[in-house]
Amino acid sequence: MTDTGSLRVFSGRSHEALTAAICRELGIEPGARTIHRFSNENLMVQVEENVRECDVFIVQTSTSPVHEHLFELLIFIDALKRASARRVTVVAPYFPYARSDKKDRPRISITARLVADLLEAAGADRVLTMDLHAPQIQGFFKIPVDHLQAQPIISQHIRENYDLSNAVIVAGDAGEAKDVARYASKLNLDFAIIDKRRYADDEKARAENLVGDVNGKTAIIIDDEIASGGTLLQAAAFLRKKGASRIVAAATHGVLTGKAAEMLESSAIEEVAVTDTIPLMLHQRFNKLRTLTVAPLFAEAIRRIHTGTSVSELFR
Amino acid sequence: MTDTGSLRVFSGRSHEALTAAICRELGIEPGARTIHRFSNENLMVQVEENVRECDVFIVQTSTSPVHEHLFELLIFIDALKRASARRVTVVAPYFPYARSDKKDRPRISITARLVADLLEAAGADRVLTMDLHAPQIQGFFKIPVDHLQAQPIISQHIRENYDLSNAVIVAGDAGEAKDVARYASKLNLDFAIIDKRRYADDEKARAENLVGDVNGKTAIIIDDEIASGGTLLQAAAFLRKKGASRIVAAATHGVLTGKAAEMLESSAIEEVAVTDTIPLMLHQRFNKLRTLTVAPLFAEAIRRIHTGTSVSELFR
Amino acid sequence: MTDTGSLRVFSGRSHEALTAAICRELGIEPGARTIHRFSNENLMVQVEENVRECDVFIVQTSTSPVHEHLFELLIFIDALKRASARRVTVVAPYFPYARSDKKDRPRISITARLVADLLEAAGADRVLTMDLHAPQIQGFFKIPVDHLQAQPIISQHIRENYDLSNAVIVAGDAGEAKDVARYASKLNLDFAIIDKRRYADDEKARAENLVGDVNGKTAIIIDDEIASGGTLLQAAAFLRKKGASRIVAAATHGVLTGKAAEMLESSAIEEVAVTDTIPLMLHQRFNKLRTLTVAPLFAEAIRRIHTGTSVSELFR
Amino acid sequence: MTDTGSLRVFSGRSHEALTAAICRELGIEPGARTIHRFSNENLMVQVEENVRECDVFIVQTSTSPVHEHLFELLIFIDALKRASARRVTVVAPYFPYARSDKKDRPRISITARLVADLLEAAGADRVLTMDLHAPQIQGFFKIPVDHLQAQPIISQHIRENYDLSNAVIVAGDAGEAKDVARYASKLNLDFAIIDKRRYADDEKARAENLVGDVNGKTAIIIDDEIASGGTLLQAAAFLRKKGASRIVAAATHGVLTGKAAEMLESSAIEEVAVTDTIPLMLHQRFNKLRTLTVAPLFAEAIRRIHTGTSVSELFR
Amino acid sequence: MTDTGSLRVFSGRSHEALTAAICRELGIEPGARTIHRFSNENLMVQVEENVRECDVFIVQTSTSPVHEHLFELLIFIDALKRASARRVTVVAPYFPYARSDKKDRPRISITARLVADLLEAAGADRVLTMDLHAPQIQGFFKIPVDHLQAQPIISQHIRENYDLSNAVIVAGDAGEAKDVARYASKLNLDFAIIDKRRYADDEKARAENLVGDVNGKTAIIIDDEIASGGTLLQAAAFLRKKGASRIVAAATHGVLTGKAAEMLESSAIEEVAVTDTIPLMLHQRFNKLRTLTVAPLFAEAIRRIHTGTSVSELFR
Amino acid sequence: MTDTGSLRVFSGRSHEALTAAICRELGIEPGARTIHRFSNENLMVQVEENVRECDVFIVQTSTSPVHEHLFELLIFIDALKRASARRVTVVAPYFPYARSDKKDRPRISITARLVADLLEAAGADRVLTMDLHAPQIQGFFKIPVDHLQAQPIISQHIRENYDLSNAVIVAGDAGEAKDVARYASKLNLDFAIIDKRRYADDEKARAENLVGDVNGKTAIIIDDEIASGGTLLQAAAFLRKKGASRIVAAATHGVLTGKAAEMLESSAIEEVAVTDTIPLMLHQRFNKLRTLTVAPLFAEAIRRIHTGTSVSELFR
Repeated sequence: MTDTGSLRVFSGRSHEALTAAICRELGIEPGARTIHRFSNENLMVQVEENVRECDVFIVQTSTSPVHEHLFELLIFIDALKRASARRVTVVAPYFPYARSDKKDRPRISITARLVADLLEAAGADRVLTMDLHAPQIQGFFKIPVDHLQAQPIISQHIRENYDLSNAVIVAGDAGEAKDVARYASKLNLDFAIIDKRRYADDEKARAENLVGDVNGKTAIIIDDEIASGGTLLQAAAFLRKKGASRIVAAATHGVLTGKAAEMLESSAIEEVAVTDTIPLMLHQRFNKLRTLTVAPLFAEAIRRIHTGTSVSELFR
Repeated sequence: MTDTGSLRVFSGRSHEALTAAICRELGIEPGARTIHRFSNENLMVQVEENVRECDVFIVQTSTSPVHEHLFELLIFIDALKRASARRVTVVAPYFPYARSDKKDRPRISITARLVADLLEAAGADRVLTMDLHAPQIQGFFKIPVDHLQAQPIISQHIRENYDLSNAVIVAGDAGEAKDVARYASKLNLDFAIIDKRRYADDEKARAENLVGDVNGKTAIIIDDEIASGGTLLQAAAFLRKKGASRIVAAATHGVLTGKAAEMLESSAIEEVAVTDTIPLMLHQRFNKLRTLTVAPLFAEAIRRIHTGTSVSELFR
Repeated sequence: MTDTGSLRVFSGRSHEALTAAICRELGIEPGARTIHRFSNENLMVQVEENVRECDVFIVQTSTSPVHEHLFELLIFIDALKRASARRVTVVAPYFPYARSDKKDRPRISITARLVADLLEAAGADRVLTMDLHAPQIQGFFKIPVDHLQAQPIISQHIRENYDLSNAVIVAGDAGEAKDVARYASKLNLDFAIIDKRRYADDEKARAENLVGDVNGKTAIIIDDEIASGGTLLQAAAFLRKKGASRIVAAATHGVLTGKAAEMLESSAIEEVAVTDTIPLMLHQRFNKLRTLTVAPLFAEAIRRIHTGTSVSELFR
Repeated sequence: MTDTGSLRVFSGRSHEALTAAICRELGIEPGARTIHRFSNENLMVQVEENVRECDVFIVQTSTSPVHEHLFELLIFIDALKRASARRVTVVAPYFPYARSDKKDRPRISITARLVADLLEAAGADRVLTMDLHAPQIQGFFKIPVDHLQAQPIISQHIRENYDLSNAVIVAGDAGEAKDVARYASKLNLDFAIIDKRRYADDEKARAENLVGDVNGKTAIIIDDEIASGGTLLQAAAFLRKKGASRIVAAATHGVLTGKAAEMLESSAIEEVAVTDTIPLMLHQRFNKLRTLTVAPLFAEAIRRIHTGTSVSELFR
Repeated sequence: MTDTGSLRVFSGRSHEALTAAICRELGIEPGARTIHRFSNENLMVQVEENVRECDVFIVQTSTSPVHEHLFELLIFIDALKRASARRVTVVAPYFPYARSDKKDRPRISITARLVADLLEAAGADRVLTMDLHAPQIQGFFKIPVDHLQAQPIISQHIRENYDLSNAVIVAGDAGEAKDVARYASKLNLDFAIIDKRRYADDEKARAENLVGDVNGKTAIIIDDEIASGGTLLQAAAFLRKKGASRIVAAATHGVLTGKAAEMLESSAIEEVAVTDTIPLMLHQRFNKLRTLTVAPLFAEAIRRIHTGTSVSELFR
Repeated sequence: MTDTGSLRVFSGRSHEALTAAICRELGIEPGARTIHRFSNENLMVQVEENVRECDVFIVQTSTSPVHEHLFELLIFIDALKRASARRVTVVAPYFPYARSDKKDRPRISITARLVADLLEAAGADRVLTMDLHAPQIQGFFKIPVDHLQAQPIISQHIRENYDLSNAVIVAGDAGEAKDVARYASKLNLDFAIIDKRRYADDEKARAENLVGDVNGKTAIIIDDEIASGGTLLQAAAFLRKKGASRIVAAATHGVLTGKAAEMLESSAIEEVAVTDTIPLMLHQRFNKLRTLTVAPLFAEAIRRIHTGTSVSELFR
């Protein structure tokens, strides 16, 4: 084993439960730190143990308050680098602003690239993340990125819980077709796509056609994230109309904003599975929700990065 | 109008015809330059007129010999910057290595990002390009990118040449679904997707299902580029089997490698339309091929970049 | 006059009133932009007018929600640079994290430097700000900074409102001595310093001595900012004990967090003057508060930066 | 202990005695090097032993000839990096140009930031220094800085040599108030400040008031450095007039330019203590001078940086 | 020995024989990799073994197709850095574009510097090369360069094969005088220079004078490379005319373009020695050619770089 | 004419006479600035006029005290950039450390590259210089360099002053052969080279052979600079021994260190011509010295850089 200094895993304030679970898997304690928030909202992150020449990981996901957590991460990196950490790896289970990955309107920012630049400017040496909205985002970084996939975890959940003899994977719109085709291939199922159209720039896209067939089948809607739940609810209503016998959904990232929990609970969808890349507040939980843990996968990836053994073997 | 120095448009050796057409539209002569290739293959680019404080554009597309043309571009940029050009804009109608935009295997390069870094390292100030394989590639650049679309030009060709009362847009695989859905929406048509599967890592993907319906219809296959033509030929055969009455194809970039021309000419496809982002050698031309010019669009974009007027208005 | 492109002044959401006032002084309209906040808190800044080759200023101060406003600024810069603005100047009347300007504890961040790096990484070309907590912060930037002073505005307020024949300027602790000495010199007054001591690291500093004399005099407490008001209230109580006949206070930045307004209103301090570098919400206003505007000074500085005339002449 | 390569400590020509003392503490020999000065003043630094993969420290302080020593340091760094040293730490006991840390006049350089940039451009990986004129200067660096304090050494000297039952710490002007308050607090003494005023820009500042009280007391003047001694002499004369019974002085850095030694020897000041961050030439020495060594502190800091143990514990 | 991770040596496609020879010397196998060339000429380099935290060397020389090999190297570096190699050293036995090292005409590139920038932009950490056209090229890099010399190998060949009692070293033009003088000094011989003149800018330089004397002597022409052989042939004819009794030639890099082999075989030159920094295709070989291997020297340099022992000792 | 802002030419303290001459040619006054040197040798450069959006040139040559002048230049650049100059061009008639352009010994710096990096780090936008020791040094810069030649000025002096019917150009050692051949070609003369050898590393090189012939001829020794004069004196003695009838010398840069003037005056050399790239102190002047001015050439180059017209035309 190569010498990469001592291993330290620190937690930002965004998801201490996940950090704790990762550390349990690794058999270590989370690093000691104090995060103070002054009356003017400014943050002070103080690392409370020596980290000179250490191999440090900071776990920080993107969740409310999004910008405060992101800035806390940048400050944390700066504090660690000025404290002479040998290497700082950002562990971002749900990467901030991943959906802002292209200029699909004039004169907007490509904010996912901006976030990559800011992390590099703050001094991050590596990134470990999961299911970026587009795989190209990995190319927004000059520093190495390890990109984990929840698909094996979610596929296993689907196999164990649903009768796949008469099921179909569904994409909520054409943009998800590639991901959904990958799931369909791994589960040996067909897929269908909801074709949405927008007739004016300021109008919302509406489900118009179903490309493929769900009639009499279990429709398994797959997406990378569930935010307001609007796309999912629209899809479910449309699939019902198209004759789906049963509707379930799964996504890597359970963002679950606003009234998502409430609306999904009362929808035609029978079950919604997400992973724990994002912590769920009480108001985000609901009976139909199933949560799958990614902690062992992240712990194993951290162990391999630290010891210099292959991470890609995890994907086989 | 803002002062941005005098306008100069130079041509690399990759596509002098397109540069000439662009310059005709702009009412100027291409810049004078000598490109010498020594016996050891090394290149010397010499700018043969004063470019101090000028606003310079270099037109260079990605075509055979790909790496020599790419390197010629980098040398050209360096020569112009050392000659005190105020601003150098790379005009890359077909962007090199655009398909190498993600790490879909372990331990490979994200070469499109690498190309972006090399252009910036050489001193490029801006990029003007068309139909990148993924819109996220724009985020590989820190410098501003203007990203033109061939879709209006190709859509117009489709409207003028085919009976759309019984037609469907087809994606050769799920990865193209999003682009194809955009065309379908603009042309007010349905779309279908060929679902390809691969049963081992070292195996080629095979068309297995058709998601959507082409029976008795004109199938219009859309892709961003046609390289060896293999995807297209496989799609055509599959669509014929699925009952398509007529098959045509269109793509922005006519790469047309190997025996593509010959095989497409003798295939079930009736007509293939591409733009002139890439020059066609004699052996790449065939009777079924229709070429649409992008020269006026590039000329107008250059004019607007030079004068500081809106480029996004071109997309409306 | 030098050509620097057309002048545009945009406003972030933090202080639209100040931007409006600055634009009125300049005789122009604020630039058109849309800032959208999605259900997951993510922001989209869209510039709604052509800014190619323009000389753009963005006004954004540091106020609640601090991190969202800071991030909005970074996104705004990225959007403008990708939209080909010729130059982007950040106008930060109250600079974020200015008090985090040194490592006064082990293993913390120097966050003001981090903010400078992030602004540069996002693409900012210049900064215009006022009364940084320490003048050294200007050196955190590689890009040019114009650093305005509120002292002439506040000094004029003091001269016009208080009898200076028997007054003394007071610093709330030794760290403010240099600024306070500058005010004392400009107003031709004596100064005094409250000597605070802390007997353990985790203890708050307590006023212990008064260096200088306030007995029977009007004590004018000067600071660069008023946050929770705690320092000010402690100072006032101490000065009262030391015999000050009258107590007033002035500061450049009215941060006024928590119950600052309420507590100051009911304190021994007769009047508190701040400038409008920070907008005041209803609960931050109180009867004893006087607000002095910096809009004409910022407008004049912007005009001079834009036209290439001297800004330092403003300080004479 | 973490592997950081072999330890090497090299000396520039500015202060070989200090390097020797540091090396004695560390139990190693200074690294072998030749520094040649050609007839045209140009320098050649040749490292005379293999340093590949070594953890190298260069000791170079700021002393006459200031610019030659600074440039020698930059050349030394470049030579070491090109010789494949793993890490190069600049040990600058007295940091060059530390007083040029802000733009207090129009159109001047912030030279301390410039020096930081030059060290980083030359390839320095870390900096170890002592008592920067302002703690913010640490933020001029992106690389980690360890910032030692002479205060414990000087405070001990004061405690052992002066009767503190009737003493007061004095700042020569308001800018030193904060440092002086820190000393006062550590020594449990009161402090006083000499209030200097300047009535025209081109005039020298004159001591006008004493804020606080020195009558009948031992006045201990504290500053971060003594250069020409002018400030100190003016302060001593003023304190004598204000009734101080005894006057002594202490500073971290004994720059002692021009006739400082001579004038201080014949002044009202009884004793002047400085550390050995700067070597003293014969003409800089005088009877009243006491020199305190910082070599053990620097040696311990180097040992801790090299072994990856905490440096901040040294400050407790 | 210092820990620099595990040693890996990979080969680009330009010179697998040399890599194999180097690896044999080192007692290791070349690293596993696949290089795929698509029908559109684009390359995909896939590293087929784990390289995390490894100390990686890539051997790639500059030979036909020059630009494809150079780009393959850049892609290889990117792939290795994204695969988390600790350090990547480019081993370039014949450095690409080394002769484009200055602006000897208006408005051209300094392409050797450009290549250095591109290697650094791709992520190279070090370079190991041999006999750069000018030693200044080492200064085109910010990263460390180890610069080997073939002179001892070639000098030994000369000593062992030619009678030096009546020999003279000859430079083909004045630009080679310095290198030739070095050889002359090491071999204790005189030297002569062929003085070439050009009477118009677009004319070829012609041998006009011989500075020095070759009459009745063995003339040993030395150059850093032999490309088309034109310089050498012209020199041989001229030396023959000047009375040289015997003519041989030696150069580090055997580029041997076009009909070089054929023309040299039939020339007045009796023997031509080159090293194996460049692989020779069948048509580049000829009877008079002698090839000297540099593999042991490169292997030893790699071993020393890897273990942190002195490389310069190799030059003694 | 392109808008590049107003022209300003500032002088460092190294060569105010040359700046004055250049400004006279340009018909402008040198820019107003104050350079203060404190008692601790630290410099403060204050620009005394508004330079916002101006096109600024700083004239600073390398002369004693070399490092102070170099640092003054870096400070000057920083002051101008922070004062918002649009563009800063360094005019370095004699470039500092130009002879330290390669690693000809183990573990030394390539200081000319370091100087280039420092100028870029300080913020320089361009460089204008003359007769760099090696033309490759231009490649040490990423920013544009204009490289003037004194050869036409010196050649004209030679033509006007010496009888060329029986003259030969001489290089003091093989390293100068290329430059000397260029002079020989322009003047249509033969050349000769003094072959120096060194038999141990620590020994001085001694003239051993003359390659070429000077017997009975006027020997014109050419070099890029004359420093201690040792090379020149040794050459003159050697040429006398070899039968030269008359010996003169010319060089671009008259460094003239130590006793150079005295020794050259009393040597066999009849006349020594240098340009005024370096100011001559009284003790550097001697009767045999002829000084040729480069001021008109620099003035014309500045005019062309400022107006964006061709500089290379100056070389025809």
